[in-house]
Amino acid sequence: MGHASLRRANLATVLRHLRDEGSCSRSDIADATGLHRATVSSLMAELLDRGLVREVGIEYVGAVGRPRRAVALDGSHVGVLGTEINVDYAALYGTDLGGRVLVDRRVGMDAMGMGPDRAIKELGRVARNAIEELVRAGATPAGVGVAVPGLVDVVRGAVAFAPNLGWRDVALTVRLRAEIGHVRVPVMADNDANLAALAEYTGGIAAGTPDMVYLTGEVGVGGGIVVAGRLLRGADGFSGEVGHMPVDPTGSRCGCGRTGCWETKVGLAALVRSATPELAYGLGGAPSPDPEERVTQIARGLAEGDPRAHAAVAEVGRWLGLGGSILVNLFNPSVIVLGGYFAKLAERLIPPAQAELERLVIAGPAARCRFVASALGFGAASRGAASMVADQVINDPAAIGSAPIAATAPTLAGQ
Amino acid sequence: MGHASLRRANLATVLRHLRDEGSCSRSDIADATGLHRATVSSLMAELLDRGLVREVGIEYVGAVGRPRRAVALDGSHVGVLGTEINVDYAALYGTDLGGRVLVDRRVGMDAMGMGPDRAIKELGRVARNAIEELVRAGATPAGVGVAVPGLVDVVRGAVAFAPNLGWRDVALTVRLRAEIGHVRVPVMADNDANLAALAEYTGGIAAGTPDMVYLTGEVGVGGGIVVAGRLLRGADGFSGEVGHMPVDPTGSRCGCGRTGCWETKVGLAALVRSATPELAYGLGGAPSPDPEERVTQIARGLAEGDPRAHAAVAEVGRWLGLGGSILVNLFNPSVIVLGGYFAKLAERLIPPAQAELERLVIAGPAARCRFVASALGFGAASRGAASMVADQVINDPAAIGSAPIAATAPTLAGQ
Repeated sequence: MGHASLRRANLATVLRHLRDEGSCSRSDIADATGLHRATVSSLMAELLDRGLVREVGIEYVGAVGRPRRAVALDGSHVGVLGTEINVDYAALYGTDLGGRVLVDRRVGMDAMGMGPDRAIKELGRVARNAIEELVRAGATPAGVGVAVPGLVDVVRGAVAFAPNLGWRDVALTVRLRAEIGHVRVPVMADNDANLAALAEYTGGIAAGTPDMVYLTGEVGVGGGIVVAGRLLRGADGFSGEVGHMPVDPTGSRCGCGRTGCWETKVGLAALVRSATPELAYGLGGAPSPDPEERVTQIARGLAEGDPRAHAAVAEVGRWLGLGGSILVNLFNPSVIVLGGYFAKLAERLIPPAQAELERLVIAGPAARCRFVASALGFGAASRGAASMVADQVINDPAAIGSAPIAATAPTLAGQ
Repeated sequence: MGHASLRRANLATVLRHLRDEGSCSRSDIADATGLHRATVSSLMAELLDRGLVREVGIEYVGAVGRPRRAVALDGSHVGVLGTEINVDYAALYGTDLGGRVLVDRRVGMDAMGMGPDRAIKELGRVARNAIEELVRAGATPAGVGVAVPGLVDVVRGAVAFAPNLGWRDVALTVRLRAEIGHVRVPVMADNDANLAALAEYTGGIAAGTPDMVYLTGEVGVGGGIVVAGRLLRGADGFSGEVGHMPVDPTGSRCGCGRTGCWETKVGLAALVRSATPELAYGLGGAPSPDPEERVTQIARGLAEGDPRAHAAVAEVGRWLGLGGSILVNLFNPSVIVLGGYFAKLAERLIPPAQAELERLVIAGPAARCRFVASALGFGAASRGAASMVADQVINDPAAIGSAPIAATAPTLAGQ
């Protein structure tokens, strides 16, 4: 490791230590990290200068009240913006680095109908507004994250394929950065399920659970997988494609063209088809203009004791358990967090899913895994996008205010 | 982190640096790790004392030939022993810490017929002999690893369930340590597929591939999964149970009692049943006394153009591709390494498997993954067991010759 990259790594080590341990003295940090005290002092000067750390004055520690000059993570002047683009909405979630929430909203937007050009232009417009709000609140944006329901090439910031948006090979981050324009911020993108999993891991119902799976429940079903406290990405960033596991060779045709994908058993279209066939999706599997309305209708059917709704939800629950058993056999997570429509119908879906899971997992009760409903609602992915940016800042604080945060994030010439 | 554990971590940092970079001077190490030079000198004195490092004299580096006193990883006095217990054999693989192979053999042993008590006694006997060979070669054993075809609780060193051995809740490491007796070595256990994956990752055909899957091909089919360069373990150590993924709701009954497990499509029993039904396993799925003989027979059938053998292998290949597509959709590995009988029939199995994989993976060609045959043969798991012990030594060199290596490895009172 060269001297410059060593210094960057050491800056990150100090900042992570402050994030995890709270306020500390310089000598505490030297002891805990094994870095020389003079090195810690020099690193600290840079972090103070960048507004990432502040002096918190003299603290008295221990029985004898030994005084020390402590420092703490600050970050109130640094903003991060997470966004999500989905079939019929965009979501925005902005915070400062200390976690203060400054923007949190969802705007209706027919992203699928618009096509990528208009959708990116529109996302750029709402992101620009959110950035101005961050700036007005005193938090200069350090980056923008975008969650996308599809296969994202994280290194190039490109969407390889997003079937439900109808996108293929879209250079998302480069184009969004051009739309955002005059504000010089790096843009990074990732899959929506990955980012929702990150949000759950960071501050949701499964916070801090090192081995967990998050499932999106929409027309499509995606998975975000956390292994030993880290998001699983795979060789090309295309991990967690749970919706297209082949689970039934004699099953029905999936939107992707294959047969018997898990999505055809547990996706929203499958549920609507059997619970309320008179309202069902077209044979092509096109999503309804208002999927939430369908879920509300099914929930009403369940409340009113409609036997068809009960049977349909029980059947989806069983298939949820079967696919869940594959995830448990392979990953052995302690929790599977259910997002999207799964969370809305969790009370009725979880009992049959949990029973089927326990019947099918080979390690049986030894591999305890529970289905739980997400409490983050539709904001999970945009929150995760904000977390991704915050992690980047912590892991490379030297990049703030100079170059784009991620070495891999594309920049546009002439800006 | 306390001072003692910080020192242990720093010892490991220095040792890993020497393993990865080769010979270095003390000041190179200080520069590369950010540790103070006096700290590095003190750590080095301890590593020299423990025989893990040796002075390699003066080296001249750079254009001006600046001299430096260099040190290198030694480890020729430290031995590690890997073992595997399986249905009809035990395998032994012993090296010194520098990788010199001192023991490498397989002994026939009807472990399934013996039951756990006699099998552990017998494994203890052959391990004792191997340890004596290591000692005679000047390598004092630092630990013994055991690979087991089943669910292993790594922390307790216990086998929760090994269906093909007929074991349930066996306190393997405690009992094996008692059998090994007078030699004071810690014993650690893990699943055979995990350890074979570790061997492939360390020195097999997929060496250094950060995202890979290893499949055992026996009557049972297990998986060892490497994610971002680390073995995936899951919350309870029960990950990688690929053989029991439900892939066909209308399929046949598995040895585990469930229906349509992947093992019923690609396990050795399934192949034998359709390639040579006259020699097939009993309906109960009990393994043949000589499974290798069956594979040899099928290979002969393929060579002679027997259409039944060709059809059977093509069918297994297609199911291998289908299950492989689940692994690629979820993990996005670059390579799936085929072990056991899969490797022996690789030439005929891989083409249909690869075609089916490519048809079913949702990310398509973007997630490039190849099936490849393992070259380690039946020794893969015992090699991996030796690697596991070597990694433990590198990660906690302070434990050598004092306490058992793993803090979690059980010790017996009075020994």
